Amino acid sequence: MFYPKPIAKLIDSFSMLPGIGKRTAARMAFHVLRMKDEDVRAFSEALIECKTNLQTCSVCCNFTDTNPCLICSDQSRDPSMICVIQEPKDLIAMERTKEYRGMYHVLHGAISPMDGVGPEQVRIKELLPRLSDERVKELILATNTNLEGEATAMYIARLVKPFGIRVTRIAHGVPVGGELEQADEVTLSRALEGRNDI
Amino acid sequence: MFYPKPIAKLIDSFSMLPGIGKRTAARMAFHVLRMKDEDVRAFSEALIECKTNLQTCSVCCNFTDTNPCLICSDQSRDPSMICVIQEPKDLIAMERTKEYRGMYHVLHGAISPMDGVGPEQVRIKELLPRLSDERVKELILATNTNLEGEATAMYIARLVKPFGIRVTRIAHGVPVGGELEQADEVTLSRALEGRNDI
Repeated sequence: MFYPKPIAKLIDSFSMLPGIGKRTAARMAFHVLRMKDEDVRAFSEALIECKTNLQTCSVCCNFTDTNPCLICSDQSRDPSMICVIQEPKDLIAMERTKEYRGMYHVLHGAISPMDGVGPEQVRIKELLPRLSDERVKELILATNTNLEGEATAMYIARLVKPFGIRVTRIAHGVPVGGELEQADEVTLSRALEGRNDI
Repeated sequence: MFYPKPIAKLIDSFSMLPGIGKRTAARMAFHVLRMKDEDVRAFSEALIECKTNLQTCSVCCNFTDTNPCLICSDQSRDPSMICVIQEPKDLIAMERTKEYRGMYHVLHGAISPMDGVGPEQVRIKELLPRLSDERVKELILATNTNLEGEATAMYIARLVKPFGIRVTRIAHGVPVGGELEQADEVTLSRALEGRNDI
């Protein structure tokens, strides 16, 4: 309406991002106008590059610019464990712990019949051939702890049973640093169930 | 670190936007990966276009893709008033009121000696020749109501005095729908000073 066309278009693009309304998008667009030419050019190129130079790894299905990806081709990682996660960003969260040195498998989603997402719409079938590798001893199901994540974990656990490898699920419980009072009942009862000797 | 290079670059670009930290930037980058090719291309082009196809209007200094801008060349607008604002986005806010039908002048900043911004760093000198147009009867100073905005308004008011035109300042007061209790003392005393007969 009052915006020159190039700004209006940029505002529209920013509005497509998650959690960005028209007003924030406008603030971002005006910020771009004040950015250095080279930074804006790099931004513009990075957008295109992400769509053209990225593929999914033929082993773990994570986004990558090399195939297999850096983690799958890293000889120092432990091939005996595969951690199954929903999204590429979950891998970043896992790596940040610096505790896990095994491999990954990225599903790119979770089974959710309500949203029309069945087992075929996520990368489950790509997981099965990997389990024939006899170095694999354990499959860690680290999908989200909500309904869809649990359903997906259950589905995979049943599917993988014939392979005779150990299948584990990440623990539920009260977050570290969290207050007992603020934990919901389901979390708290899971924390009780999973209690350990000290 | 764990991101493929194209994603890392895109995260860096998103992080340059105001109020966007690394984590939000990563969420945005992963969202881009799921966007339609054509939308990402449009986004990429909009960034470049904003830097190449936009100029500042030779009359009001607002960003525009035509010169003079749409408002300055709109014959239906009232040439007797010029509203001075700090930023292009302030123009959008003014237009949204649908009350104002006059012209604008965009300063692109406010005088702020603390930040090394003097009168020469904002578009004040571009304002003066406009005041020689005898159709101009009133200059409305709508800079922000903080220290820099007030200083800028005072500076312009003094500068414009010799032109003998009416100079006004937008009113200070309690925001509409705001509670008296929540207004700070300065705002409240300004609201008192500016009280009107009803």
